[in-house]
Amino acid sequence: MTRTVYVNGDYLPEDEATVSIFDRGFVMADAVYEVVSVLEGKLLEFGGHLARLKRSLDALSIDNPLSDDEYLDAHRVLVEKNAITDGMVYLQVTRGNAGDRDFAYPPAGTRPTVVMYTQAKPGLADAPLAKTGLRVITVEDQRWARRDIKTVQLLYPSMAKMEAKARGADDAWLVEDGRVTEGTSNNAYIIKDGRIITRELSNDILHGITRASVLRLAREAQMQIEERSFTVAEAQAADEAFITSASAFVLPVIEIDGTAIGAGKPGQMAARLREIYLEESRKTGI
Amino acid sequence: MTRTVYVNGDYLPEDEATVSIFDRGFVMADAVYEVVSVLEGKLLEFGGHLARLKRSLDALSIDNPLSDDEYLDAHRVLVEKNAITDGMVYLQVTRGNAGDRDFAYPPAGTRPTVVMYTQAKPGLADAPLAKTGLRVITVEDQRWARRDIKTVQLLYPSMAKMEAKARGADDAWLVEDGRVTEGTSNNAYIIKDGRIITRELSNDILHGITRASVLRLAREAQMQIEERSFTVAEAQAADEAFITSASAFVLPVIEIDGTAIGAGKPGQMAARLREIYLEESRKTGI
Repeated sequence: MTRTVYVNGDYLPEDEATVSIFDRGFVMADAVYEVVSVLEGKLLEFGGHLARLKRSLDALSIDNPLSDDEYLDAHRVLVEKNAITDGMVYLQVTRGNAGDRDFAYPPAGTRPTVVMYTQAKPGLADAPLAKTGLRVITVEDQRWARRDIKTVQLLYPSMAKMEAKARGADDAWLVEDGRVTEGTSNNAYIIKDGRIITRELSNDILHGITRASVLRLAREAQMQIEERSFTVAEAQAADEAFITSASAFVLPVIEIDGTAIGAGKPGQMAARLREIYLEESRKTGI
Repeated sequence: MTRTVYVNGDYLPEDEATVSIFDRGFVMADAVYEVVSVLEGKLLEFGGHLARLKRSLDALSIDNPLSDDEYLDAHRVLVEKNAITDGMVYLQVTRGNAGDRDFAYPPAGTRPTVVMYTQAKPGLADAPLAKTGLRVITVEDQRWARRDIKTVQLLYPSMAKMEAKARGADDAWLVEDGRVTEGTSNNAYIIKDGRIITRELSNDILHGITRASVLRLAREAQMQIEERSFTVAEAQAADEAFITSASAFVLPVIEIDGTAIGAGKPGQMAARLREIYLEESRKTGI
C-alpha cells in the first residue's frame, strides 16, 4: 500500500511527494523536525512536540507556517488515511524554497516548506529490545554545538549508528570531554544506588519531550534524580542504564563498550519507568 | 528565463526540478557538494573539485554514481544550455532516496541522487569587493568536527553570515579555542612581515581547492608561507588579510571586528595573488 503524505497543504501518494532542489532543507540543512508517536491510534505528547517545534523554529528565525490546529489536523488526517494504529508521524519544516542557493536567508515572506508522513510500527509498545536491552558503544560527539535545536543535521548521528551496527551493537552514546552527552537519537541515563542520573539541559543535548515526562513521573514515584553529566567509566559501573525517546519510550541498556551493566540484564527501575510512562501515555494520548 | 538544471540524468526546467521528501539529503543532510566557477565560459579547477567530491563521498561511504566524463559532460551541457559566461555550477550528491526515513544507511545499491545547476554571475572576476575589501566579524565556530568533508550541513555558516549582515559586515570568520578556523564559505589568511599565514590542513577546515592553488602560485612567486593557526588579535595586528574560495577567488579583508587591518585598505600582496590566480585560471580553465 502506498502511503499518503502531506506536503505544503496537499495530501499526496508518497511517490509523488517531492520538494524543490532549491529548498533550503535540501541544500543547507536549514530545517527542523519532530516525531510524534502513535499508540493505539492516539498521538502521544503532541503538545510537547509542538512546543519544541516552535522553540526550534524561533531559534532559527523560521516563521511558523501553520497554526496548532492545522498541525494537529494534519497529524490526525495522516493517521486516519494510513490506518496507523501504532507508529509515528514525522514532521519537517524548512526555511523554504529560496529560488536559488545562497548562504543568506531568503527574503521575509518566503513560505516555509512543511512535510509530514507516517511510519507504521505495529506493536510499538512491545519492542523486543525492552526485554533484551540495548548494547551500546561510545564514540566521540562530533556534532555541532546547538543540539538543543532539533535540526535535520543528522549525518553524524547516522554515521555513529552505522558504526554501532558495524561493531555488533544496537546504538552509540556520544561522548564529549570524557562525559556522555546523549545517544544518537535518544537521551541517556544511568542508575546508581537508586538514583537516576542524566545530563542536565543545555545546548549540548536535545531537550527530550520523553525525558521531561519520564523525569516528572519518576519524581512523582518518589525516585531520586540527579541532573548532571557522567563519564563512560561511571556508566559502566552503574547498576542500570537506559535511554528514552519519543518512539522508543524507555529502553534498558545492558552493555556499554562491551562491559555489562549491573547484572547484564534489563534493570528493574528502567522496566518500572517504561511501565509508568506507557501507562501515562495511554491515558494522555489524544 | 528559466534555468535548465540536472537531476539524476534528466535536464529539466528549474521549477520542475525536485527530489523525493524521503531523499537523505533532505531528511538527514546526508549529502556533499561542490561549486565549480565558470569564467569566460571555461570551468575552473574542475579536476580539483572532482577529486575533492570523490574524497567527500569516500569519507561518507557514498557510492560515486557518475564517471568523471559524465560529471564533466553535464557541467558543459548546463553551461551551454544556460548560456553561462561567468558564474558557477553547483553539484550535490546525496545518499539517495531510501524509501523511508531511518538513521541507518539504506541498502547497498540505493542510487545516490545527483543534482546540478548553474548560477550566472556576470563580471565574476570584477567583483567590487576586490577593490573595496571585506569587513568581517568573528563568531564562535559551532560546526561539526568534520569540516574537511564538504557536506550540506551549512546551517551554522548560514547563521554566521546572517549575523555578519546584521552587524553591518560582509562575512564572518569562525573561531575555535581562540584561533581562526576559516570563513563561512572560504579559507582565511593573514600576511605579516611579508609572510602569508593560513591554518594548516586538518579535519578542522575545508581543504580549499582555491587555497591549494593560491599557495602553490604564491610559492612559485617566491612568497613565504606559514601553515599554522592564528588568533583574532594576531589577525587584527596583521599587515594584510584575505580570503579565498572557488567563486570569490582572492578577496582582501580590510577590517576584523571593527579593527582596520594594515592601512584599512586592500593590501598589495592580496591584490597580487588575486591577479596571479586569475591569470592562471584563464590559462588552465577547460
